[in-house]
Amino acid sequence: MSSIEQSEVVVLGWWPSMFYARVRIALAEKGINYEYVEEDLPDNKSPLLLKHNPIYKKVPVLIHKGKSICESKIIIQYIDETWKEGYPLLPSDPYLKSQAAFWADYIDKHIYKGANMVVNSKGEEMQKGVEEFLGYLKVLERELGEKPYFNGESFGFVDMALICYYSSFVASEIIGNFSIEKHCPKLAVWATQCLKRESVSKALADPKKVYDLLIAYRKKTGLEE
Amino acid sequence: MSSIEQSEVVVLGWWPSMFYARVRIALAEKGINYEYVEEDLPDNKSPLLLKHNPIYKKVPVLIHKGKSICESKIIIQYIDETWKEGYPLLPSDPYLKSQAAFWADYIDKHIYKGANMVVNSKGEEMQKGVEEFLGYLKVLERELGEKPYFNGESFGFVDMALICYYSSFVASEIIGNFSIEKHCPKLAVWATQCLKRESVSKALADPKKVYDLLIAYRKKTGLEE
Repeated sequence: MSSIEQSEVVVLGWWPSMFYARVRIALAEKGINYEYVEEDLPDNKSPLLLKHNPIYKKVPVLIHKGKSICESKIIIQYIDETWKEGYPLLPSDPYLKSQAAFWADYIDKHIYKGANMVVNSKGEEMQKGVEEFLGYLKVLERELGEKPYFNGESFGFVDMALICYYSSFVASEIIGNFSIEKHCPKLAVWATQCLKRESVSKALADPKKVYDLLIAYRKKTGLEE
Repeated sequence: MSSIEQSEVVVLGWWPSMFYARVRIALAEKGINYEYVEEDLPDNKSPLLLKHNPIYKKVPVLIHKGKSICESKIIIQYIDETWKEGYPLLPSDPYLKSQAAFWADYIDKHIYKGANMVVNSKGEEMQKGVEEFLGYLKVLERELGEKPYFNGESFGFVDMALICYYSSFVASEIIGNFSIEKHCPKLAVWATQCLKRESVSKALADPKKVYDLLIAYRKKTGLEE
Protein backbone atom coordinates (compact mmCIF):
# COMPACT_ATOMS: atom_id res chain seq x y z
CA MET A 1 0.00 0.00 0.00
CA SER A 2 1.42 3.43 -0.94
CA SER A 3 1.85 6.12 1.72
CA ILE A 4 -1.05 8.10 0.31
CA GLU A 5 -3.37 5.12 0.73
CA GLN A 6 -2.55 5.06 4.42
CA SER A 7 -4.35 8.37 4.92
CA GLU A 8 -7.79 7.91 6.47
CA VAL A 9 -9.62 9.66 3.63
CA VAL A 10 -8.25 10.11 0.10
CA VAL A 11 -9.95 11.58 -2.95
CA LEU A 12 -8.76 11.01 -6.50
CA GLY A 13 -10.01 13.85 -8.70
CA TRP A 14 -9.34 16.01 -11.71
CA TRP A 15 -9.91 19.77 -11.58
CA PRO A 16 -12.51 20.14 -14.42
CA SER A 17 -14.56 17.11 -13.32
CA MET A 18 -18.05 18.08 -12.17
CA PHE A 19 -18.34 14.72 -10.46
CA TYR A 20 -15.21 15.39 -8.44
CA ALA A 21 -16.66 18.82 -7.53
CA ARG A 22 -19.76 17.01 -6.27
CA VAL A 23 -17.74 14.87 -3.86
CA ARG A 24 -15.73 17.91 -2.79
CA ILE A 25 -18.94 19.74 -1.87
CA ALA A 26 -20.21 16.75 0.12
CA LEU A 27 -16.97 16.40 2.10
CA ALA A 28 -16.85 20.15 2.78
CA GLU A 29 -20.47 20.14 4.01
CA LYS A 30 -19.54 17.34 6.43
CA GLY A 31 -16.31 19.09 7.44
CA ILE A 32 -14.12 16.08 6.59
CA ASN A 33 -10.42 16.54 5.92
CA TYR A 34 -8.87 14.47 3.18
CA GLU A 35 -5.77 13.90 1.15
CA TYR A 36 -6.30 15.03 -2.43
CA VAL A 37 -4.66 13.39 -5.44
CA GLU A 38 -4.99 15.28 -8.73
CA GLU A 39 -5.08 12.89 -11.67
CA ASP A 40 -3.51 13.86 -15.00
CA LEU A 41 -6.47 13.06 -17.26
CA PRO A 42 -7.54 12.00 -19.78
CA ASP A 43 -4.26 10.41 -20.87
CA ASN A 44 -2.10 9.60 -17.84
CA LYS A 45 -4.22 7.62 -15.42
CA SER A 46 -2.24 6.85 -12.28
CA PRO A 47 -1.66 3.30 -10.97
CA LEU A 48 -3.65 4.44 -7.91
CA LEU A 49 -6.69 5.25 -10.07
CA LEU A 50 -6.42 2.00 -12.03
CA LYS A 51 -6.17 0.07 -8.78
CA HIS A 52 -9.07 1.75 -7.01
CA ASN A 53 -11.48 2.08 -9.94
CA PRO A 54 -10.57 -0.88 -12.17
CA ILE A 55 -14.02 -1.01 -13.81
CA TYR A 56 -14.40 2.57 -15.06
CA LYS A 57 -10.91 4.03 -14.45
CA LYS A 58 -12.55 7.38 -13.77
CA VAL A 59 -12.54 10.04 -11.08
CA PRO A 60 -13.81 10.69 -8.51
CA VAL A 61 -12.77 7.86 -6.22
CA LEU A 62 -13.10 8.08 -2.46
CA ILE A 63 -10.69 5.87 -0.55
CA HIS A 64 -11.72 5.49 3.06
CA LYS A 65 -9.49 3.39 5.31
CA GLY A 66 -8.08 1.72 2.21
CA LYS A 67 -11.46 0.80 0.72
CA SER A 68 -12.53 2.48 -2.49
CA ILE A 69 -15.95 3.84 -3.38
CA CYS A 70 -16.66 4.95 -6.95
CA GLU A 71 -19.40 6.90 -8.75
CA SER A 72 -20.18 10.32 -7.33
CA LYS A 73 -23.81 9.82 -6.26
CA ILE A 74 -22.88 6.56 -4.54
CA ILE A 75 -19.95 8.32 -2.86
CA ILE A 76 -22.25 11.05 -1.50
CA GLN A 77 -24.64 8.51 -0.03
CA TYR A 78 -21.67 6.68 1.51
CA ILE A 79 -20.35 9.93 3.02
CA ASP A 80 -23.77 10.77 4.42
CA GLU A 81 -24.20 7.35 6.03
CA THR A 82 -20.62 7.06 7.30
CA TRP A 83 -20.33 10.50 8.87
CA LYS A 84 -23.85 10.77 10.24
CA GLU A 85 -23.01 13.73 12.42
CA GLY A 86 -22.78 17.08 10.66
CA TYR A 87 -24.78 18.43 7.78
CA PRO A 88 -27.31 15.89 6.38
CA LEU A 89 -26.80 15.43 2.63
CA LEU A 90 -29.84 13.24 1.97
CA PRO A 91 -33.29 13.36 3.57
CA SER A 92 -33.81 10.63 6.18
CA ASP A 93 -37.46 10.12 5.17
CA PRO A 94 -37.60 7.24 2.63
CA TYR A 95 -40.05 9.02 0.31
CA LEU A 96 -38.13 12.31 0.25
CA LYS A 97 -34.92 10.31 -0.24
CA SER A 98 -36.46 8.46 -3.20
CA GLN A 99 -37.46 11.76 -4.79
CA ALA A 100 -33.96 13.19 -4.30
CA ALA A 101 -32.49 10.02 -5.85
CA PHE A 102 -34.92 10.31 -8.78
CA TRP A 103 -33.93 13.89 -9.61
CA ALA A 104 -30.19 13.35 -9.13
CA ASP A 105 -30.53 10.40 -11.53
CA TYR A 106 -32.49 12.58 -13.99
CA ILE A 107 -29.69 15.15 -13.86
CA ASP A 108 -27.01 12.59 -14.68
CA LYS A 109 -29.10 10.97 -17.40
CA HIS A 110 -29.97 14.19 -19.22
CA ILE A 111 -27.93 17.20 -18.16
CA TYR A 112 -24.53 15.65 -18.83
CA LYS A 113 -25.68 14.43 -22.24
CA GLY A 114 -27.39 17.77 -22.95
CA ALA A 115 -24.33 19.88 -22.13
CA ASN A 116 -22.15 17.47 -24.13
CA MET A 117 -24.41 17.76 -27.16
CA VAL A 118 -23.80 21.49 -27.23
CA VAL A 119 -20.03 21.22 -26.77
CA ASN A 120 -19.62 18.37 -29.29
CA SER A 121 -21.39 19.95 -32.24
CA LYS A 122 -21.65 22.99 -34.47
CA GLY A 123 -24.11 24.76 -36.76
CA GLU A 124 -27.61 23.32 -36.99
CA GLU A 125 -26.75 20.28 -34.90
CA MET A 126 -25.57 22.58 -32.10
CA GLN A 127 -28.79 24.58 -32.35
CA LYS A 128 -30.77 21.36 -31.94
CA GLY A 129 -28.53 20.39 -29.01
CA VAL A 130 -29.13 23.73 -27.28
CA GLU A 131 -32.90 23.33 -27.60
CA GLU A 132 -32.85 19.78 -26.25
CA PHE A 133 -30.55 20.82 -23.39
CA LEU A 134 -32.83 23.73 -22.47
CA GLY A 135 -35.77 21.31 -22.56
CA TYR A 136 -34.13 19.18 -19.86
CA LEU A 137 -33.30 22.27 -17.80
CA LYS A 138 -36.91 23.48 -18.05
CA VAL A 139 -38.06 20.21 -16.48
CA LEU A 140 -35.74 20.99 -13.56
CA GLU A 141 -36.97 24.60 -13.47
CA ARG A 142 -40.53 23.29 -13.05
CA GLU A 143 -39.44 20.81 -10.37
CA LEU A 144 -37.63 23.55 -8.43
CA GLY A 145 -40.72 25.77 -8.65
CA GLU A 146 -40.86 28.38 -5.91
CA LYS A 147 -38.63 26.45 -3.49
CA PRO A 148 -35.22 27.91 -2.60
CA TYR A 149 -33.61 24.47 -3.03
CA PHE A 150 -34.74 21.29 -4.76
CA ASN A 151 -35.19 19.59 -1.45
CA GLY A 152 -37.16 22.50 0.02
CA GLU A 153 -35.65 24.88 2.54
CA SER A 154 -32.14 23.47 2.73
CA PHE A 155 -29.29 22.72 0.33
CA GLY A 156 -29.08 18.97 -0.36
CA PHE A 157 -28.41 16.02 -2.66
CA VAL A 158 -30.18 17.31 -5.81
CA ASP A 159 -28.63 20.77 -5.43
CA MET A 160 -25.19 19.16 -5.14
CA ALA A 161 -25.93 16.96 -8.14
CA LEU A 162 -26.84 19.93 -10.35
CA ILE A 163 -24.67 22.83 -9.16
CA CYS A 164 -21.51 20.86 -9.93
CA TYR A 165 -22.32 21.42 -13.64
CA TYR A 166 -22.31 25.19 -13.17
CA SER A 167 -18.84 25.89 -14.65
CA SER A 168 -19.56 23.80 -17.72
CA PHE A 169 -22.95 25.54 -18.08
CA VAL A 170 -21.20 28.92 -18.24
CA ALA A 171 -18.79 27.55 -20.86
CA SER A 172 -21.62 25.91 -22.86
CA GLU A 173 -23.61 29.17 -22.90
CA ILE A 174 -20.70 31.02 -24.52
CA ILE A 175 -19.95 28.21 -26.97
CA GLY A 176 -23.63 27.67 -27.90
CA ASN A 177 -24.58 31.39 -27.70
CA PHE A 178 -27.60 30.97 -25.44
CA SER A 179 -28.71 32.05 -21.97
CA ILE A 180 -29.94 29.62 -19.35
CA GLU A 181 -31.12 32.56 -17.23
CA LYS A 182 -33.41 33.77 -20.03
CA HIS A 183 -35.17 30.39 -20.27
CA CYS A 184 -34.86 29.24 -16.67
CA PRO A 185 -34.84 32.34 -14.42
CA LYS A 186 -35.60 30.33 -11.27
CA LEU A 187 -32.60 28.05 -11.87
CA ALA A 188 -30.44 31.16 -12.25
CA VAL A 189 -31.58 32.50 -8.85
CA TRP A 190 -31.09 29.04 -7.33
CA ALA A 191 -27.53 28.82 -8.75
CA THR A 192 -26.66 32.25 -7.29
CA GLN A 193 -27.88 31.04 -3.89
CA CYS A 194 -25.87 27.81 -4.13
CA LEU A 195 -22.73 29.70 -5.15
CA LYS A 196 -22.92 31.69 -1.91
CA ARG A 197 -22.08 28.51 0.01
CA GLU A 198 -18.36 28.19 0.64
CA SER A 199 -18.53 24.42 0.03
CA VAL A 200 -19.78 25.12 -3.49
CA SER A 201 -17.72 28.16 -4.50
CA LYS A 202 -14.51 26.45 -3.38
CA ALA A 203 -15.35 23.18 -5.16
CA LEU A 204 -16.25 24.42 -8.63
CA ALA A 205 -13.64 24.77 -11.34
CA ASP A 206 -13.02 28.28 -12.70
CA PRO A 207 -15.56 28.62 -15.59
CA LYS A 208 -12.95 30.52 -17.65
CA LYS A 209 -10.51 27.59 -17.35
CA VAL A 210 -13.27 25.10 -18.25
CA TYR A 211 -14.14 27.27 -21.26
CA ASP A 212 -10.48 27.32 -22.39
CA LEU A 213 -10.28 23.53 -22.01
CA LEU A 214 -13.45 23.01 -24.04
CA ILE A 215 -12.34 25.43 -26.77
CA ALA A 216 -8.99 23.61 -27.00
CA TYR A 217 -10.95 20.34 -27.35
CA ARG A 218 -13.20 21.83 -30.05
CA LYS A 219 -10.19 23.07 -32.00
CA LYS A 220 -8.45 19.71 -31.70
CA THR A 221 -11.52 17.85 -32.96
CA GLY A 222 -12.16 20.31 -35.80
CA LEU A 223 -15.41 21.69 -34.33
CA GLU A 224 -13.90 25.15 -34.13
CA GLU A 225 -11.19 26.91 -36.13
CA MET B 1 -58.31 9.95 -7.02
CA SER B 2 -59.38 6.67 -8.70
CA SER B 3 -60.44 3.69 -6.58
CA ILE B 4 -57.22 1.83 -7.43
CA GLU B 5 -55.13 4.72 -6.07
CA GLN B 6 -56.86 4.35 -2.74
CA SER B 7 -55.21 0.98 -2.18
CA GLU B 8 -52.30 1.20 0.25
CA VAL B 9 -49.76 -0.22 -2.24
CA VAL B 10 -50.18 -0.22 -6.02
CA VAL B 11 -47.73 -1.35 -8.68
CA LEU B 12 -47.96 -0.34 -12.32
CA GLY B 13 -46.16 -2.92 -14.46
CA TRP B 14 -46.00 -4.69 -17.79
CA TRP B 15 -45.43 -8.43 -17.95
CA PRO B 16 -42.19 -8.52 -20.05
CA SER B 17 -40.53 -5.66 -18.13
CA MET B 18 -37.45 -6.82 -16.23
CA PHE B 19 -37.65 -3.69 -14.12
CA TYR B 20 -41.18 -4.54 -13.06
CA ALA B 21 -39.96 -8.08 -12.22
CA ARG B 22 -37.33 -6.50 -10.00
CA VAL B 23 -39.93 -4.63 -7.96
CA ARG B 24 -42.10 -7.74 -7.82
CA ILE B 25 -39.20 -9.73 -6.33
CA ALA B 26 -38.52 -7.02 -3.73
CA LEU B 27 -42.17 -6.84 -2.63
CA ALA B 28 -42.41 -10.64 -2.44
CA GLU B 29 -39.22 -10.83 -0.34
CA LYS B 30 -40.78 -8.33 2.09
CA GLY B 31 -44.13 -10.13 2.00
CA ILE B 32 -46.08 -7.03 0.99
CA ASN B 33 -49.48 -7.34 -0.66
CA TYR B 34 -50.31 -4.92 -3.43
CA GLU B 35 -52.79 -4.08 -6.10
CA TYR B 36 -51.35 -4.78 -9.54
CA VAL B 37 -52.17 -2.77 -12.66
CA GLU B 38 -50.98 -4.25 -15.94
CA GLU B 39 -50.17 -1.54 -18.46
CA ASP B 40 -50.83 -2.06 -22.16
CA LEU B 41 -47.40 -1.04 -23.48
CA PRO B 42 -45.75 0.28 -25.49
CA ASP B 43 -48.65 2.06 -27.17
CA ASN B 44 -51.53 2.52 -24.73
CA LYS B 45 -50.12 4.15 -21.62
CA SER B 46 -52.86 4.59 -19.03
CA PRO B 47 -53.82 7.95 -17.52
CA LEU B 48 -52.66 6.43 -14.21
CA LEU B 49 -49.15 5.83 -15.59
CA LEU B 50 -48.97 9.30 -17.16
CA LYS B 51 -50.08 10.84 -13.87
CA HIS B 52 -47.69 8.90 -11.64
CA ASN B 53 -44.61 8.89 -13.87
CA PRO B 54 -44.98 12.12 -15.87
CA ILE B 55 -41.23 12.38 -16.55
CA TYR B 56 -40.47 8.97 -18.08
CA LYS B 57 -43.98 7.52 -18.57
CA LYS B 58 -42.51 4.07 -17.90
CA VAL B 59 -43.18 1.12 -15.63
CA PRO B 60 -42.60 0.15 -12.92
CA VAL B 61 -44.23 2.69 -10.66
CA LEU B 62 -44.87 2.01 -6.99
CA ILE B 63 -47.73 4.03 -5.52
CA HIS B 64 -47.66 3.96 -1.74
CA LYS B 65 -50.44 5.80 0.11
CA GLY B 66 -51.04 7.86 -3.04
CA LYS B 67 -47.40 8.89 -3.49
CA SER B 68 -45.50 7.59 -6.49
CA ILE B 69 -41.95 6.30 -6.63
CA CYS B 70 -40.33 5.60 -10.01
CA GLU B 71 -37.19 3.84 -11.27
CA SER B 72 -36.74 0.25 -10.10
CA LYS B 73 -33.51 0.58 -8.10
CA ILE B 74 -34.91 3.62 -6.30
CA ILE B 75 -38.14 1.73 -5.64
CA ILE B 76 -36.23 -1.19 -4.08
CA GLN B 77 -34.33 1.13 -1.75
CA TYR B 78 -37.63 2.79 -0.81
CA ILE B 79 -39.24 -0.59 -0.10
CA ASP B 80 -36.28 -1.64 2.03
CA GLU B 81 -36.33 1.57 4.09
CA THR B 82 -40.11 1.75 4.43
CA TRP B 83 -40.76 -1.85 5.44
CA LYS B 84 -37.70 -2.32 7.64
CA GLU B 85 -39.03 -5.52 9.16
CA GLY B 86 -38.75 -8.62 7.02
CA TYR B 87 -36.04 -9.66 4.60
CA PRO B 88 -33.29 -7.02 4.20
CA LEU B 89 -32.83 -6.11 0.53
CA LEU B 90 -29.75 -3.90 0.94
CA PRO B 91 -26.83 -4.26 3.34
CA SER B 92 -27.03 -1.87 6.30
CA ASP B 93 -23.25 -1.31 6.34
CA PRO B 94 -22.53 1.86 4.28
CA TYR B 95 -19.53 0.33 2.47
CA LEU B 96 -21.32 -2.90 1.52
CA LYS B 97 -24.32 -0.82 0.47
CA SER B 98 -22.09 1.36 -1.75
CA GLN B 99 -20.68 -1.75 -3.42
CA ALA B 100 -24.17 -3.17 -4.01
CA ALA B 101 -25.24 0.18 -5.50
CA PHE B 102 -22.13 0.21 -7.72
CA TRP B 103 -22.83 -3.23 -9.21
CA ALA B 104 -26.56 -2.68 -9.64
CA ASP B 105 -25.68 0.53 -11.48
CA TYR B 106 -23.12 -1.37 -13.61
CA ILE B 107 -25.82 -3.90 -14.52
CA ASP B 108 -28.24 -1.22 -15.69
CA LYS B 109 -25.54 0.69 -17.56
CA HIS B 110 -24.18 -2.31 -19.46
CA ILE B 111 -26.38 -5.39 -19.34
CA TYR B 112 -29.52 -3.70 -20.65
CA LYS B 113 -27.55 -2.09 -23.47
CA GLY B 114 -25.67 -5.35 -24.16
CA ALA B 115 -28.81 -7.50 -24.39
CA ASN B 116 -30.43 -4.82 -26.57
CA MET B 117 -27.46 -4.78 -28.93
CA VAL B 118 -27.98 -8.47 -29.61
CA VAL B 119 -31.73 -8.20 -30.10
CA ASN B 120 -31.54 -5.06 -32.27
CA SER B 121 -29.05 -6.29 -34.84
CA LYS B 122 -28.18 -9.04 -37.29
CA GLY B 123 -25.18 -10.54 -39.05
CA GLU B 124 -21.77 -9.14 -38.22
CA GLU B 125 -23.18 -6.38 -36.06
CA MET B 126 -24.99 -8.98 -33.96
CA GLN B 127 -21.78 -10.97 -33.61
CA LYS B 128 -20.04 -7.85 -32.32
CA GLY B 129 -22.96 -7.24 -29.97
CA VAL B 130 -22.78 -10.77 -28.57
CA GLU B 131 -19.05 -10.38 -27.86
CA GLU B 132 -19.51 -7.02 -26.15
CA PHE B 133 -22.44 -8.37 -24.12
CA LEU B 134 -20.43 -11.41 -23.01
CA GLY B 135 -17.60 -9.06 -22.05
CA TYR B 136 -19.92 -7.24 -19.62
CA LEU B 137 -21.20 -10.54 -18.23
CA LYS B 138 -17.63 -11.77 -17.69
CA VAL B 139 -16.97 -8.73 -15.49
CA LEU B 140 -19.95 -9.82 -13.39
CA GLU B 141 -18.71 -13.44 -13.41
CA ARG B 142 -15.41 -12.23 -11.94
CA GLU B 143 -17.20 -10.07 -9.35
CA LEU B 144 -19.39 -13.01 -8.29
CA GLY B 145 -16.32 -15.23 -7.97
CA GLU B 146 -16.85 -18.13 -5.61
CA LYS B 147 -19.64 -16.48 -3.64
CA PRO B 148 -23.15 -17.99 -3.84
CA TYR B 149 -24.65 -14.50 -4.25
CA PHE B 150 -23.16 -11.15 -5.24
CA ASN B 151 -23.61 -9.87 -1.75
CA GLY B 152 -22.03 -12.96 -0.19
CA GLU B 153 -24.11 -15.59 1.57
CA SER B 154 -27.57 -14.17 1.02
CA PHE B 155 -29.71 -13.11 -1.91
CA GLY B 156 -29.80 -9.31 -2.19
CA PHE B 157 -29.89 -6.09 -4.20
CA VAL B 158 -27.37 -7.02 -6.93
CA ASP B 159 -28.92 -10.48 -7.39
CA MET B 160 -32.33 -8.85 -7.80
CA ALA B 161 -30.88 -6.32 -10.21
CA LEU B 162 -29.39 -9.03 -12.46
CA ILE B 163 -31.75 -12.01 -12.23
CA CYS B 164 -34.63 -9.90 -13.54
CA TYR B 165 -32.87 -10.03 -16.95
CA TYR B 166 -32.97 -13.83 -16.96
CA SER B 167 -35.91 -14.29 -19.34
CA SER B 168 -34.47 -11.86 -21.86
CA PHE B 169 -31.07 -13.60 -21.55
CA VAL B 170 -32.67 -16.90 -22.57
CA ALA B 171 -34.34 -15.19 -25.53
CA SER B 172 -31.13 -13.36 -26.52
CA GLU B 173 -29.15 -16.61 -26.45
CA ILE B 174 -31.50 -18.21 -28.97
CA ILE B 175 -31.64 -15.10 -31.17
CA GLY B 176 -27.86 -14.53 -31.07
CA ASN B 177 -26.93 -18.23 -31.06
CA PHE B 178 -24.59 -18.16 -28.07
CA SER B 179 -24.41 -19.66 -24.61
CA ILE B 180 -23.93 -17.59 -21.47
CA GLU B 181 -23.28 -20.78 -19.49
CA LYS B 182 -20.34 -21.67 -21.73
CA HIS B 183 -18.61 -18.33 -21.10
CA CYS B 184 -19.87 -17.62 -17.59
CA PRO B 185 -20.43 -20.96 -15.80
CA LYS B 186 -20.53 -19.36 -12.34
CA LEU B 187 -23.29 -16.98 -13.41
CA ALA B 188 -25.24 -19.99 -14.70
CA VAL B 189 -24.99 -21.74 -11.31
CA TRP B 190 -25.90 -18.49 -9.57
CA ALA B 191 -28.99 -18.06 -11.81
CA THR B 192 -30.16 -21.60 -11.05
CA GLN B 193 -29.86 -20.83 -7.34
CA CYS B 194 -31.80 -17.57 -7.68
CA LEU B 195 -34.55 -19.28 -9.70
CA LYS B 196 -35.16 -21.63 -6.76
CA ARG B 197 -36.51 -18.70 -4.78
CA GLU B 198 -40.26 -18.40 -5.08
CA SER B 199 -40.02 -14.59 -5.17
CA VAL B 200 -37.89 -14.88 -8.31
CA SER B 201 -39.57 -17.74 -10.17
CA LYS B 202 -42.99 -16.14 -9.71
CA ALA B 203 -41.78 -12.69 -10.82
CA LEU B 204 -39.99 -13.52 -14.05
CA ALA B 205 -41.80 -13.48 -17.36
CA ASP B 206 -42.01 -16.79 -19.27
CA PRO B 207 -38.81 -16.84 -21.43
CA LYS B 208 -40.78 -18.41 -24.30
CA LYS B 209 -43.25 -15.52 -24.28
CA VAL B 210 -40.40 -12.99 -24.14
CA TYR B 211 -38.75 -14.79 -27.07
CA ASP B 212 -41.99 -14.63 -29.10
CA LEU B 213 -42.35 -10.92 -28.31
CA LEU B 214 -38.77 -10.20 -29.39
CA ILE B 215 -39.12 -12.25 -32.58
CA ALA B 216 -42.32 -10.36 -33.44
CA TYR B 217 -40.39 -7.12 -32.86
CA ARG B 218 -37.51 -8.30 -35.07
CA LYS B 219 -39.90 -9.24 -37.86
CA LYS B 220 -41.71 -5.91 -37.59
CA THR B 221 -38.45 -3.96 -37.81
CA GLY B 222 -37.06 -6.08 -40.66
CA LEU B 223 -34.26 -7.67 -38.58
CA GLU B 224 -35.72 -11.12 -39.19
CA GLU B 225 -37.78 -12.54 -42.03
